[in-house]
Amino acid sequence: MTYPAGTAYIEGRFVPMSEAKISVLDWGFLHSDATYDVVHVWKGRFFRLDVHVERFLRSAERLHLTLPVSPQRLAGILAECVTRSGFEDAYVEMVLTRGVSPTFSRDPRDAHNQLICFAIPFGWILKPEQREAGLSVVLSDIRRIPPDSVDPTVKNYHWLDFVMGLYDAYDRGAQSAVLTDAQGNLAEGPGFNIFTVRQGRIATPARGVLRGVTRQTAIELATERGFPLDERVVSAAEALAADEVFVTSTAGGIMPVTRINANPVGDGRMGPITRALLETYWAKHEDASWSTAVEAALAAGPAP
Amino acid sequence: MTYPAGTAYIEGRFVPMSEAKISVLDWGFLHSDATYDVVHVWKGRFFRLDVHVERFLRSAERLHLTLPVSPQRLAGILAECVTRSGFEDAYVEMVLTRGVSPTFSRDPRDAHNQLICFAIPFGWILKPEQREAGLSVVLSDIRRIPPDSVDPTVKNYHWLDFVMGLYDAYDRGAQSAVLTDAQGNLAEGPGFNIFTVRQGRIATPARGVLRGVTRQTAIELATERGFPLDERVVSAAEALAADEVFVTSTAGGIMPVTRINANPVGDGRMGPITRALLETYWAKHEDASWSTAVEAALAAGPAP
Repeated sequence: MTYPAGTAYIEGRFVPMSEAKISVLDWGFLHSDATYDVVHVWKGRFFRLDVHVERFLRSAERLHLTLPVSPQRLAGILAECVTRSGFEDAYVEMVLTRGVSPTFSRDPRDAHNQLICFAIPFGWILKPEQREAGLSVVLSDIRRIPPDSVDPTVKNYHWLDFVMGLYDAYDRGAQSAVLTDAQGNLAEGPGFNIFTVRQGRIATPARGVLRGVTRQTAIELATERGFPLDERVVSAAEALAADEVFVTSTAGGIMPVTRINANPVGDGRMGPITRALLETYWAKHEDASWSTAVEAALAAGPAP
Repeated sequence: MTYPAGTAYIEGRFVPMSEAKISVLDWGFLHSDATYDVVHVWKGRFFRLDVHVERFLRSAERLHLTLPVSPQRLAGILAECVTRSGFEDAYVEMVLTRGVSPTFSRDPRDAHNQLICFAIPFGWILKPEQREAGLSVVLSDIRRIPPDSVDPTVKNYHWLDFVMGLYDAYDRGAQSAVLTDAQGNLAEGPGFNIFTVRQGRIATPARGVLRGVTRQTAIELATERGFPLDERVVSAAEALAADEVFVTSTAGGIMPVTRINANPVGDGRMGPITRALLETYWAKHEDASWSTAVEAALAAGPAP
């Protein structure tokens, strides 16, 4: 078995990815009883680290999970995973699991919560060289797990609906899938939020979706650039009739969707609003108010 | 960290539970992209091993997962986990995960599916000494993940709805929770199916639930004992007005529910139909048409 390069923090130690392993009895595995967050590092700087850490803490609290370290120390651990790996660009994940209960008791309160962090090479939903061509997606009949079952604002690993959506996409010659809600309106895709543009106005689903940090960033950048934007119900028909569609994810930023259900979106090429937001997004990576040097996070959160 | 006793099979080797670990990059962890099944051993005999293995194979196929061994060899591995552990009674789990993709590609087709099996001491939702008192549950407002999102007949680890239901139960002084569907009808609880009895007639939800092997066993035993039973929509009101309620799980068999939302079910004691089914259930464990000696499974599925 080969593993990606990188460094993990697990059970209080830093290890290479090949040694980063959790017990099969961890409820994070056996019940997907865990939350996580992913922040990326670009050219030696974390992008919006504070926003990711804040969301992670809020998700943990909602699941009655206790982070065993301070937020500053968490940032220090994430930074140390990156520096030990020697990455300039990285995909950095923090995970808090329910953990193992020594007696295999089914009571989640008996388990010892476990923090795992790791840095691996930057991962892309759409690689930079594929960006001009854009992403081809299908609108899937699979319903996104609804918010009255699992709170989508608590970032979680309940992905079987997405995975089945991906196989649906592959069967139909596309690269990814957008799931819908019980009313057939747009929800989200595997690892991304979706936006439509029609006559210069942007829309994105307001409910039943992860409040992605890149989604939030796109909303802020649209405001900054003066593009009107609504968070509301967005029908599948609107996506099919849109001038532009784009998706947002830590794994690739802002990415154009140029085909839906095998039909071109608009003229089938990246649209001007998507391009403007995409360029602004990457420019922000050098802005100190949006990013943190890995070395600074390391210095601020040393081992106790 | 202490772990339960027992033996696991992972990456082709048998190891103690303390060493049974999977990569944190396994999609079975990072996306809960896995299926599993649990069979129990009682007094040296597997109970309905063939039914569990058959369901496991069907679940794997639905998720586009490939079992790396034959069904006979799988049974042999499960048996070897038990004999190496020296257990007379055991909880035996088989798991098939999407696995790791060496490049961390997001395409599930790039991952190497991984089989993990383990035997640990028998686990109970309700211990035998608690059986007369019965289980106290709440009917939770949390909706069970619906079947148009994740197929519940494919046994899966998407349990955050159940885990939140458990915390809801603890807050309300109960031991467990029964989740409902979008119409407010009964669905299932964490690891169990539910049955109601009213005027001698048994009912259990037909849809949106795992088709549990113990559920199926209870249905067959009801037929054998001459108790009429319907698989249909069962309202929450019916549970509250029932003469008897019981739940079924590999982790404990058939177990009476004697309190719902802090109110007694019937007279608050185990009812006669529950008792008859429970006794028949345990009697079947010595019946060769319902059970398989661990030694026989071991002999039938040797290492290739």
